[in-house]
Amino acid sequence: MDKIKVGIIGAGGYGGCGAVELLQAHPHAEIRALIDKQDVGKPISALYPHLTGFCDLPLIAPDDPNCPTDFQVVFFSTPDGVGQKGAAAWLKKGVKVIDYSGDFRFNDLETYQGYAARIGKDPNHASPDLLSRSVYGLAELHRDTISRSDLVGNPGCFAVSCILGLAPAVKSGLIEAGSIICDAKTGVSGAGKTPNPTFHYPARYDAMNAYRISGHQHVYEVERELALIAGQEIRITFTPHVVPLCRGILTTLYANLEEGQTLRKVEEAYRSFYAGESFVRVFGPETPQVSTNVRGSNFCNLSLNVDDRTGRLIVVSLIDNLVKGQAGSAVQNMNIMFGLDETAGLLHPGIYP
Amino acid sequence: MDKIKVGIIGAGGYGGCGAVELLQAHPHAEIRALIDKQDVGKPISALYPHLTGFCDLPLIAPDDPNCPTDFQVVFFSTPDGVGQKGAAAWLKKGVKVIDYSGDFRFNDLETYQGYAARIGKDPNHASPDLLSRSVYGLAELHRDTISRSDLVGNPGCFAVSCILGLAPAVKSGLIEAGSIICDAKTGVSGAGKTPNPTFHYPARYDAMNAYRISGHQHVYEVERELALIAGQEIRITFTPHVVPLCRGILTTLYANLEEGQTLRKVEEAYRSFYAGESFVRVFGPETPQVSTNVRGSNFCNLSLNVDDRTGRLIVVSLIDNLVKGQAGSAVQNMNIMFGLDETAGLLHPGIYP
Amino acid sequence: MDKIKVGIIGAGGYGGCGAVELLQAHPHAEIRALIDKQDVGKPISALYPHLTGFCDLPLIAPDDPNCPTDFQVVFFSTPDGVGQKGAAAWLKKGVKVIDYSGDFRFNDLETYQGYAARIGKDPNHASPDLLSRSVYGLAELHRDTISRSDLVGNPGCFAVSCILGLAPAVKSGLIEAGSIICDAKTGVSGAGKTPNPTFHYPARYDAMNAYRISGHQHVYEVERELALIAGQEIRITFTPHVVPLCRGILTTLYANLEEGQTLRKVEEAYRSFYAGESFVRVFGPETPQVSTNVRGSNFCNLSLNVDDRTGRLIVVSLIDNLVKGQAGSAVQNMNIMFGLDETAGLLHPGIYP
Amino acid sequence: MDKIKVGIIGAGGYGGCGAVELLQAHPHAEIRALIDKQDVGKPISALYPHLTGFCDLPLIAPDDPNCPTDFQVVFFSTPDGVGQKGAAAWLKKGVKVIDYSGDFRFNDLETYQGYAARIGKDPNHASPDLLSRSVYGLAELHRDTISRSDLVGNPGCFAVSCILGLAPAVKSGLIEAGSIICDAKTGVSGAGKTPNPTFHYPARYDAMNAYRISGHQHVYEVERELALIAGQEIRITFTPHVVPLCRGILTTLYANLEEGQTLRKVEEAYRSFYAGESFVRVFGPETPQVSTNVRGSNFCNLSLNVDDRTGRLIVVSLIDNLVKGQAGSAVQNMNIMFGLDETAGLLHPGIYP
Repeated sequence: MDKIKVGIIGAGGYGGCGAVELLQAHPHAEIRALIDKQDVGKPISALYPHLTGFCDLPLIAPDDPNCPTDFQVVFFSTPDGVGQKGAAAWLKKGVKVIDYSGDFRFNDLETYQGYAARIGKDPNHASPDLLSRSVYGLAELHRDTISRSDLVGNPGCFAVSCILGLAPAVKSGLIEAGSIICDAKTGVSGAGKTPNPTFHYPARYDAMNAYRISGHQHVYEVERELALIAGQEIRITFTPHVVPLCRGILTTLYANLEEGQTLRKVEEAYRSFYAGESFVRVFGPETPQVSTNVRGSNFCNLSLNVDDRTGRLIVVSLIDNLVKGQAGSAVQNMNIMFGLDETAGLLHPGIYP
Repeated sequence: MDKIKVGIIGAGGYGGCGAVELLQAHPHAEIRALIDKQDVGKPISALYPHLTGFCDLPLIAPDDPNCPTDFQVVFFSTPDGVGQKGAAAWLKKGVKVIDYSGDFRFNDLETYQGYAARIGKDPNHASPDLLSRSVYGLAELHRDTISRSDLVGNPGCFAVSCILGLAPAVKSGLIEAGSIICDAKTGVSGAGKTPNPTFHYPARYDAMNAYRISGHQHVYEVERELALIAGQEIRITFTPHVVPLCRGILTTLYANLEEGQTLRKVEEAYRSFYAGESFVRVFGPETPQVSTNVRGSNFCNLSLNVDDRTGRLIVVSLIDNLVKGQAGSAVQNMNIMFGLDETAGLLHPGIYP
Repeated sequence: MDKIKVGIIGAGGYGGCGAVELLQAHPHAEIRALIDKQDVGKPISALYPHLTGFCDLPLIAPDDPNCPTDFQVVFFSTPDGVGQKGAAAWLKKGVKVIDYSGDFRFNDLETYQGYAARIGKDPNHASPDLLSRSVYGLAELHRDTISRSDLVGNPGCFAVSCILGLAPAVKSGLIEAGSIICDAKTGVSGAGKTPNPTFHYPARYDAMNAYRISGHQHVYEVERELALIAGQEIRITFTPHVVPLCRGILTTLYANLEEGQTLRKVEEAYRSFYAGESFVRVFGPETPQVSTNVRGSNFCNLSLNVDDRTGRLIVVSLIDNLVKGQAGSAVQNMNIMFGLDETAGLLHPGIYP
Repeated sequence: MDKIKVGIIGAGGYGGCGAVELLQAHPHAEIRALIDKQDVGKPISALYPHLTGFCDLPLIAPDDPNCPTDFQVVFFSTPDGVGQKGAAAWLKKGVKVIDYSGDFRFNDLETYQGYAARIGKDPNHASPDLLSRSVYGLAELHRDTISRSDLVGNPGCFAVSCILGLAPAVKSGLIEAGSIICDAKTGVSGAGKTPNPTFHYPARYDAMNAYRISGHQHVYEVERELALIAGQEIRITFTPHVVPLCRGILTTLYANLEEGQTLRKVEEAYRSFYAGESFVRVFGPETPQVSTNVRGSNFCNLSLNVDDRTGRLIVVSLIDNLVKGQAGSAVQNMNIMFGLDETAGLLHPGIYP
């Protein structure tokens, strides 16, 4: 089989770097072009020297007439607003699109506008007609639709961690829908590549903080996906925190158990929900998980606990924000969209310590 | 005025080191002896070389006949079980006692036994008759009693962070008592000085995890103190996490607001509760706090938030676990017990970055 | 005695923050004004919230007509080029000046121009006539001159670490002048407050590197000071490295011992040279030093070693780059210039861990 | 081709973990058994949970009668003294041996005894007759001999970094043999898996230090290998430092250039020496290297610099101590010993950030 030809737009950021790391070793895909407005002409390995000899393609400007266009799929590793403008042209050529931003995470205009309103941005979408073709790119929930789609909105990193940690409980009616609290701790790589005062090394050293309390942009997609599962509106409280490590999201999920639910039933529901999944690992309270267990890998580790005294479910959900939370999910989606083994190019354990 | 003569038992650990740091510069106290079973004969500055020239007293064995005994106060910087055996002899001599452990945090035997049962330890207390004299050493709640007491149970680090963050809300009936969730993140110094696999540097690097989910030993004193304030039993869900920084506890506190409560009322209640307090700083949502704001200091910074969509109060409570969470509270208690200015020797801003 | 009135220019940077930390607790000095072009109007405690309640003075623009001018000393916590323009006006009013930059580290124009040439900057000095009044502000070498001076060029952080580590060996002729190699490792706070790609947290995490190999701007002052001691030109090889910690410089200094020199003679020379010094601590090879031994303090710890097999002296020199390497030296110089106890406001051990 | 059957002795340590990470994805090798005295019966993935699903073999005791023995090669990931006792039995069965310790790094008894004397250990070797069959396992120097050998002494991590950084200069006579100084900075993973006070997280946080100054056990093999290249005795000064990162060794190598040598000649010599090498990358001063450039990979990055003012060569040599400094070199040696492509299973770029 010929390798799938991939173009990456916004390749110079961490999201692009992560995609290159995975795709350069992918058995059935090859990177055709790395597109970015910044650092044009520089090889990607000048920005990310660990890639030297693995991928030395230059960054090419999006409007460069010499930019290859013979892709089968493009990754938009770009912020909100870019993919919605650029996707249509690629789709028209028969090129599949995987977008990292919020642009295609909601498949109707009304929902998108709810998202835009929530985070205070322009309610207009540049390609509203595309929304109905788009799929929310969390394979564990939407594998079949993704396999038939050519436009995927890759999920937000926090959202992956919350949704995977809550979906079975919501699906099985184990918890009170109104009682969900998500307390997320993220490493600093989620801030992306651009320097700013908050993520300046000395300012961040030995430092932790909560931010955007109840206002983070990923809340909306968590509520949306959980509502689709539950068949009813769900409102969550979500607090993200930055802690001084590089990679990883640990989200501690709290919810009141419905009457009569037990740890055993919880474990059954989760194990059943994720039976056959390659990238979700379910653990009971006797096997607590550390974020390094998933660092550098596409896994989500869930550890299930019940606080008997208060009747609460406590799920600890761990992912690598740059893999399962970003580039790894994108590659997983690509694999599904092209009918490949879903795990192709993704079975890396990471390194330790 | 002559300086207060202080003896520190268990001086070789981090809790002892913290007390030495504060007391060596205290205007009205002086360290008379450093007592420990380990490293006997070594100057404390051999264990903690930054103290060289500031305190070079040797560690002396508790049973050394040459050990000074002319203290006015002893700090038991020791684990559960030590202070309850040793306190009586000192009290008999008229020496005040401040104990860092759980031994004197509960002033009746039944409550102590509830604590012991909760964490699975021996229900017997070596000095049950002393319990009624003891005071829970959180100055912001028990200042008057502390001032009249000669036996103080210094609070647990997580407990300080939770209780200070919740007391005004509980006191003013702002929140539903059964809805409290405490999600705590601590730096690694809380693990103390003894090496173990969990806190081995490479194993902890770039790593975070939850632990003792709903089973931490500090839960009991939080529930106890909140119950005393509320006048009713309170059960909380408490999840501690270790994140890879050295000093600091950030606890995110969640509770359902009672009908009709608002951010404004919350802010008023907290500002009123802590009016005149030297070491608690209250902030609204517009001034988010970072853990380095309190690092190396005896302050507790509280940031108040309301999630309007879900009707929840979210308080972010920050302390330095080794200062306000341990040695700083102990010195604050000493100041109160001796009628000194409560802030004596404690007004340090820490350093940054 | 009235307190010395201090103005800090460039107060918003880390160098200003460090000076505020020390001066707010100084028994004989008080901060009159904090001057900066950025963040004008904000209290310093908004930039550095740990200072809340300790110093809440606003930043005031240098050209603000309401800016106080009744200082007895101004600190220029500013980069090269600022102090040389501003110092004269203050000196004319009888205000002493301590400048953090390279502007006044060389007390004749020719030497200054050598410095400028070495680092490729404009050879012109805005106040060449002031150079002869200026003193290199390393108290251990120039205490007497500093005490008589009103213009001090505070030394570079790496320079402090190298010069204190080498001065006794050079003075006593223990080492071959041409054989000196300085391998310095610095924490990241030396980068200052302004974000940039090199010191972006994720880019710096788990990362170390050498930089400006044989081209660092502090080399010149090290060579200059050592030459003054040796009475002959000295050329050194100096390589700075950034390692991922916050505070601290560890410089490993290598030089060939002259025939017949021994560890014992080395130790004697160093102990004699630094006899009576408050802020230099000399250790033999049996007491290796860790950077945390000086973190947050104004000390320089020197550990002396001889490699018998190769006949080399190896001195490990440790300072906190932001204290003895910057603000602490500045305050030490201020104390000397005003005839105060040199240690006033500087005897802090720091905190551990 | 059947896969090479590998047994790993001492598999539970970091060196074993590193070998498992590489071998579980190796196209031509498979792990047959993991042998250790500790944690017997536990799957390796219980010790290193990131390996879950990749390698779940249990640790088996060395004397367990059910332990497989049908290996083609065994890795002794064990400290000095173990391999020398165990190797003979395996070799007798025709099983090749790769030993991580100092036991087989010197191929004659006299040299081994020099090593033992240097580090103060027992001069007797348990298998002196095997020494002449052993090869120093640095592929870039001894590829041919390794390919014909069945007993390889895998090099020490610091030694890899020093020897690769100096070999071309020594070989080409670019530098004065007596002038070599190696200043090494290592991450903390080099300390291995066993907790101890020096590597306890809080004690190591924000901390750096030099240790074993001129007494490190890797010095001897560096001198030995350089002497073999130079044809004359070479004595080096070597100072290791621990800095607070996890993976990586950065060694800054200093030596006086011989008369007439230039950067251009240095670059030519290095590029020529390493022409065709898969795992050594040579850079000039214009491309400074950061340790993350090699993290998680088997590469050694060398950056070449000349300090014209002092006539010194400065080489910055970077490796991942656990890959090229340990398990990666071991796998590279295995590949060579079995006639495989030397890079098999080793071409990973690592991840960033």
